[in-house]
Amino acid sequence: MNSSDKNASEGAAASPSPLLIVGSVAFDSVQTVVGKRDEVLGGAASYASVAASFFAPPRLVGVVGSDFQHSHIDFFRSRGVDTTGIEVAAGRTFRWAGRYADDFSSRTTLDTQLNVFESFKPRLPSGWNESPFVFLANIDPVLQLEVLGQCNRPKFVACDTMNFWIEGRRDELGLLLKKVDMLLLNDEEARQLSGLSSLPAAARAILEMGPASVVVKRGDAGALLFHKGGVFAAPAFPLETVVDPTGAGDSFAGGFMGWLARMGGTTPADIRTALVLGTVTASYCVEDFSLDRFRTLDLAQIRQRFIAFSDLVHFEKIRF
Amino acid sequence: MNSSDKNASEGAAASPSPLLIVGSVAFDSVQTVVGKRDEVLGGAASYASVAASFFAPPRLVGVVGSDFQHSHIDFFRSRGVDTTGIEVAAGRTFRWAGRYADDFSSRTTLDTQLNVFESFKPRLPSGWNESPFVFLANIDPVLQLEVLGQCNRPKFVACDTMNFWIEGRRDELGLLLKKVDMLLLNDEEARQLSGLSSLPAAARAILEMGPASVVVKRGDAGALLFHKGGVFAAPAFPLETVVDPTGAGDSFAGGFMGWLARMGGTTPADIRTALVLGTVTASYCVEDFSLDRFRTLDLAQIRQRFIAFSDLVHFEKIRF
Repeated sequence: MNSSDKNASEGAAASPSPLLIVGSVAFDSVQTVVGKRDEVLGGAASYASVAASFFAPPRLVGVVGSDFQHSHIDFFRSRGVDTTGIEVAAGRTFRWAGRYADDFSSRTTLDTQLNVFESFKPRLPSGWNESPFVFLANIDPVLQLEVLGQCNRPKFVACDTMNFWIEGRRDELGLLLKKVDMLLLNDEEARQLSGLSSLPAAARAILEMGPASVVVKRGDAGALLFHKGGVFAAPAFPLETVVDPTGAGDSFAGGFMGWLARMGGTTPADIRTALVLGTVTASYCVEDFSLDRFRTLDLAQIRQRFIAFSDLVHFEKIRF
Repeated sequence: MNSSDKNASEGAAASPSPLLIVGSVAFDSVQTVVGKRDEVLGGAASYASVAASFFAPPRLVGVVGSDFQHSHIDFFRSRGVDTTGIEVAAGRTFRWAGRYADDFSSRTTLDTQLNVFESFKPRLPSGWNESPFVFLANIDPVLQLEVLGQCNRPKFVACDTMNFWIEGRRDELGLLLKKVDMLLLNDEEARQLSGLSSLPAAARAILEMGPASVVVKRGDAGALLFHKGGVFAAPAFPLETVVDPTGAGDSFAGGFMGWLARMGGTTPADIRTALVLGTVTASYCVEDFSLDRFRTLDLAQIRQRFIAFSDLVHFEKIRF
């Protein structure tokens, strides 16, 4: 039995570890070259939780307003997401509206209404502080630190961030980076945080800020992982048609964390495979608006595209 | 003996097939964030030939002016490049000048002087019409067709092109594409040629124009190969420091064609490995100005980075 076979049986028989996901739940209004949708389910924690759910049942902590339809809660539950941590506050749910360029090379935010999200104070339901896997989606680093303060020695913590916090919460972000195992961010954020334009140089500088791993998300140029196992590059899965890129990065993170929680491991090899499954999960996300593609997706399709991804990067390791 | 072992022995013992390379030889003046160089050796055929020379001795067809230093000819010969096909015409050598943005995301052409290149008529020295491998670097498709007209049933022909010819020589380019096995072009050119913004859709449209393979070069986002073996994605090799990106695409093509000529094969598996070796060769090219990195590069270093590239994209093919 070689190591792949051993992992294969683990992959099939694993009893997933609890995975905590904290972040936004929102209504998105989106325009792309394919069409438009108004006030559909969105938010980083929604995407990450449902993406993770194909591998391990996540615990979602977020806040919604009194206008949040119960059908969305039902959808989360149908995917195995524990929604006990979704607080329903008086007021309206967080809303975001945006439009993508026809070639998806850029997007314009048309409207942001924080609503109940503005005073979000994440509170973990009883027992959730024992979650060994934690994903802190993109929220104020002060809140990300508060969540970590409630957690009891998690095994693996990953966090996301954005330009707004890099600019306005640099000290708090610096504290956070000393307490997490992995930072996920996009290429522009990596350059902003490090002040360096070369991505490998930027990643090295960020690793010196604390995390053992950094993932630089580059959209359709794929992702780069810098970690103690070296550097790993995962191209994006090539798609003829993209419908809506919203939530791709959060689905990537969710698929990634879901796989780690499923396997219970955090070795460099685990992390590389998780990154590929994050890539695969994100590639499905963009095939429809909102989280709609996840409503029909199943593990067999994920497995199929994981095999297709393996072929995508396969070449013979010739000696010469 | 498995197929990798078989290829390994072929890789070591191969007797390379002749490789014909036709294109520009130039003097470049380049400014990057690292520094500047004036009137250094450049040109697509220079880069492609020297890059290929690490795998197979190329035959270079191009034109230079009477101001072309013999030291450059000596350099080509020291790399095993057959320079019989370099015509020395009365007048000045082709000159190009450009400046790169500090983050290398764009470049500005400051000056172009075609000089003797303006009336370039490629003529193959005796016997070179029997070259089984042919790379037609970026020149007027009319000339690329003329070269092919002089060739006697080559085994594998690849060509490059650019926006200028896609716009102004579309009919001739269309004729050419029916006669070549592979087109290499960058992402913007692929979109321009096909009229489609999705790269997989663009590539599919281009395959319908004739070539069995299309390579879309994306700079630091790597390369995508669309061919009968499916789709292959090769990330760029991550480099902390880039000195000068000039010639990276031509070095990629040269390394690619050099490997095919070395192995003598054109199967999908050969093409994928060739694409990785093109990536590796290009990654060395950008580490110094002009072709200078190639002056000290050797096959052992190429082998070392080929192994590093294999690790870069390696992950466990877990079944789940």
